Amino acid sequence: MNDRTDTQDTGRHQSGRKAKSRGGRGRRSGRSRERLIYIPLGGAGEIGMNMYLYGYGAPGRERFIMVDAGVTFPSMDTTPGVDLIMADPGFIAERADRLEAIFVTHAHEDHIGALGMLHGQLGYPTIHARPFTAAHVRRKLEEAGAEPEAVVETGPLPETVEAGPFTVGFLPVSHSIPESSALVIDTPAGRIVHTGDFKLDETPGVGEPFDEEAWRAVAAEGVKALVMDSTNVFSLHPGRSEAVIREPIRELVASAEGMVAATTFASNVARLKTLAEAGIAAGRKVVLLGRAMRRMVDVALQSGVIESFPPTVSPEDARDMPRDKLMVLATGSQGERRAATAQLAQGKYLGFEMREGDMFLFSSKTIPGNEISVARIMNQLSEKGVDVIDDGEGLYHVSGHANRPDLERMHEIVRPEMLIPMHGEHRHLRRHVRIAEEKGIPGVVAPNGAVVDLTGTRPEIVDQVETGRIYRDGSELIGAFDGIVRDRIRMALNGLVAVAVVLDDADDPLREAWVETFGLTDPEGEKELAEHIEADLDAALTRASDKVLDSDEELEALIRRTARKTAERLIGKRPEVRPVISRLTMA
Amino acid sequence: MNDRTDTQDTGRHQSGRKAKSRGGRGRRSGRSRERLIYIPLGGAGEIGMNMYLYGYGAPGRERFIMVDAGVTFPSMDTTPGVDLIMADPGFIAERADRLEAIFVTHAHEDHIGALGMLHGQLGYPTIHARPFTAAHVRRKLEEAGAEPEAVVETGPLPETVEAGPFTVGFLPVSHSIPESSALVIDTPAGRIVHTGDFKLDETPGVGEPFDEEAWRAVAAEGVKALVMDSTNVFSLHPGRSEAVIREPIRELVASAEGMVAATTFASNVARLKTLAEAGIAAGRKVVLLGRAMRRMVDVALQSGVIESFPPTVSPEDARDMPRDKLMVLATGSQGERRAATAQLAQGKYLGFEMREGDMFLFSSKTIPGNEISVARIMNQLSEKGVDVIDDGEGLYHVSGHANRPDLERMHEIVRPEMLIPMHGEHRHLRRHVRIAEEKGIPGVVAPNGAVVDLTGTRPEIVDQVETGRIYRDGSELIGAFDGIVRDRIRMALNGLVAVAVVLDDADDPLREAWVETFGLTDPEGEKELAEHIEADLDAALTRASDKVLDSDEELEALIRRTARKTAERLIGKRPEVRPVISRLTMA
Repeated sequence: MNDRTDTQDTGRHQSGRKAKSRGGRGRRSGRSRERLIYIPLGGAGEIGMNMYLYGYGAPGRERFIMVDAGVTFPSMDTTPGVDLIMADPGFIAERADRLEAIFVTHAHEDHIGALGMLHGQLGYPTIHARPFTAAHVRRKLEEAGAEPEAVVETGPLPETVEAGPFTVGFLPVSHSIPESSALVIDTPAGRIVHTGDFKLDETPGVGEPFDEEAWRAVAAEGVKALVMDSTNVFSLHPGRSEAVIREPIRELVASAEGMVAATTFASNVARLKTLAEAGIAAGRKVVLLGRAMRRMVDVALQSGVIESFPPTVSPEDARDMPRDKLMVLATGSQGERRAATAQLAQGKYLGFEMREGDMFLFSSKTIPGNEISVARIMNQLSEKGVDVIDDGEGLYHVSGHANRPDLERMHEIVRPEMLIPMHGEHRHLRRHVRIAEEKGIPGVVAPNGAVVDLTGTRPEIVDQVETGRIYRDGSELIGAFDGIVRDRIRMALNGLVAVAVVLDDADDPLREAWVETFGLTDPEGEKELAEHIEADLDAALTRASDKVLDSDEELEALIRRTARKTAERLIGKRPEVRPVISRLTMA
Repeated sequence: MNDRTDTQDTGRHQSGRKAKSRGGRGRRSGRSRERLIYIPLGGAGEIGMNMYLYGYGAPGRERFIMVDAGVTFPSMDTTPGVDLIMADPGFIAERADRLEAIFVTHAHEDHIGALGMLHGQLGYPTIHARPFTAAHVRRKLEEAGAEPEAVVETGPLPETVEAGPFTVGFLPVSHSIPESSALVIDTPAGRIVHTGDFKLDETPGVGEPFDEEAWRAVAAEGVKALVMDSTNVFSLHPGRSEAVIREPIRELVASAEGMVAATTFASNVARLKTLAEAGIAAGRKVVLLGRAMRRMVDVALQSGVIESFPPTVSPEDARDMPRDKLMVLATGSQGERRAATAQLAQGKYLGFEMREGDMFLFSSKTIPGNEISVARIMNQLSEKGVDVIDDGEGLYHVSGHANRPDLERMHEIVRPEMLIPMHGEHRHLRRHVRIAEEKGIPGVVAPNGAVVDLTGTRPEIVDQVETGRIYRDGSELIGAFDGIVRDRIRMALNGLVAVAVVLDDADDPLREAWVETFGLTDPEGEKELAEHIEADLDAALTRASDKVLDSDEELEALIRRTARKTAERLIGKRPEVRPVISRLTMA
């Protein structure tokens, strides 16, 4: 909501008078009538950092609920040194008094990871989630120093939660983590079904099977808008059930002769169970390596999403057992540097060491961007003589997201008046809209920041709000456009020259410029690059006019220009230059 | 050849006396007898920067030939700021007097990219290649300021080249660039077949079809060692011919309504022709965008690997033609930032602009590591309303490398005494050896630096030579372990604090420390991080003993410790700290 249509709405200090005056300025007919809007702040136009808003009310006075608040992971390419990335909640943070509650669909990091860090900015709203998810959200709040009491556990439909003009129910759906739920959001303008992440798995092993009847019952009352996962819209074959990989994994583990290790996402409790059971069936003891995995199993047991997990032995006890009787489940399927898989690939970890004749199974898919890290680990294991098995042939992993035929089946089950794709890059959203429209369901590509009016018979983008990314960096939250990360990238690409110049109280250079280089090579010959730059700077400073020497700005420009020119001439690089000018004032 | 077995062999200044004395120290029987060895310096244990040596002679006195000298591409993750990466040729550079010649299998960058930069270090050897390849190699030499006259053009077998104890012939094989050749290397110890990169394509469109009879003829004389491409050892289905995508591409282009653009590797001349012909068949004019593509077509025509290319129009002329009558072929299938595809995705390029209803075809595979860049471009195009088509369904691209069934077919055609896999990561090599050994062909995993003795009945790793990577960085070549790139990575991850301290001639701080930060955020509050660090440094310097102030080393440690502690306390980061200590000596 930009200045044109939402000027008066500057957050929680909004007055009735202003609201009224804005109502009078409405350019569209019905401007002051209540409307139902959808605003993605994260997750639409990218896969990761999901954050969606629904609003209902008169324009500028809508009451909101938020669905999910997740993170995405940094990369050296674009966000070196950053710890976590999340959607900038600025729009709703400024209207925190109008945020009724947050609803969480499931416990994946890209849906819950930002809740702790942003809870304060959002005005400490109540967070509704089912028990397994709630346990993970509480931990996120605790880790960020927020109050875990904000989390309220909710059962699935028919239980519902009232939140301002919204009545929200959790509708179970299958995914790669237990207890995933779609949200059934009833509003005065009609029913929305927000799928969350999902697949259509009628035999998921752990967690609720996809229950077509329950979905048809929800749909029977009429669905205005289906807001829907688009991750696998380019996968043309029907999705496969978790059940289909159980036997291949069992056979694989049974065929192994040495130690067996396997990795998958820690949160994929069904897969952990499949892997553990394959180990047990092969007469092996199961060991969980990596905190996240042990925690996930504990939470799954405590929250009741699994009644039992195969018996495990501690890493300490396992060390004394025969290697060919062990089945190790390790965190780090995405090549994470500090996780158990990476550690096992590099050497010993908690006393375990992979050796010639062992087997390592990647029961996982590599997320785009992690290919190199994962391949590095696979090769390290190969160098140790370990047989590395991955999902190249589709035997040992299934996706947690619905493929195109499943998306189409969902369209048919829900039969919504309109479709809004989410959880996808722009091309995924675009393709998903096309598929829906070919079947006569109006849709719209609504990337982050789009304000979509769902009140009418087709979705309409009526406005655009500011969105962006914020970074957790050390203990701070920084903006993506603060320039800090840009500076890091430039230093990494170009190297850095730090120059100290000391001027006396007459603004004359007190001694030669002092230069240090960082991330730069020295040219051939006896002199270092720094010495060459020092010499050229001394010459430049000697020639410099008083006007230049008097002005920090001009002096810095001179230093920068001189240092760059020297570096370019000698080593062909144009480094970042950081002048440090000290003016002595003799007291 | 490490100190134990090759101590006396310190390069071209080796004397007969020394050689004799070393012969006498041999630990293996037959040590001084002539042997045939294979040493990969690059490309074995990675995909990229190929560089292989063959040697024949008495140990320590072998005469060598080199096969290929390519580059690999840097990444922000591990090599920020670096321009190109190549294998460190140190081992053979120190023995350049024993290098007879270089043979080049084909003109891909990972096989020729380093020839110009390393030619001098290698003692300016003659480079043998077939005409199309030779034209590209000459350009590499010119670009690096070396002499293109070093390149000697050679025809295919039965033509051969004598190089010391080696007789080398070029045996045509199909790949994704014209004129690829295996090398048939005859030595006193038997025949080696070095496949280079290959696939088994009997209908490649451009370039020589795979000619099984020619290969059988070479094999008929007996092959001691088959040294073989392993890239696609994990692909279980038989490889597909370039011919199978011709019709799908033609249909796709015929179905398009707006402008059509397509990208592929510029060097894939067959694909360029397929794409251009599809455009012509659909009544479109063909435009080549991107220098590399135009150059590739020119060289292909000049060297005779194609007799004709469909007519093209210049970008200038095309701008005045109806958009729906254009077929643009653009460089940059891997998401390269400055290539035509990236430019078209971002906005106008040479007057061309993609619009709603246009089509963009990626007739290519994304090389691991480039996924994010390619997806970014696809999404930018999607945002413009362009239909982005990729090879998700296998319709519009085929690989240039032999899949597992093709590798096995090759084993059967050549029936070598032994197999050495190359052109693969460690896991590829390992798997390839296992496949060969299951069929009774002895093999060995020989990663970079392995000295493999091929003289006996099975390959034997007898030594290890030093290998590594060197980087072209600006105008310089730097070592991977020089610490320069490591410093860049650290700055990018941790940020940098530059500290200037000025001490008078009594070694007392002359004024407050001066601090600049780079790539670091400021803490909440009024004071910048730099000011906090300055205050803490002043306190620390005031407390510091004369001993510390007198010593640059101790003073630097104090500065580093203090600055890090402050940053960690205030913003949770532990930055790199670069102290610049100026000691004034009043003359």
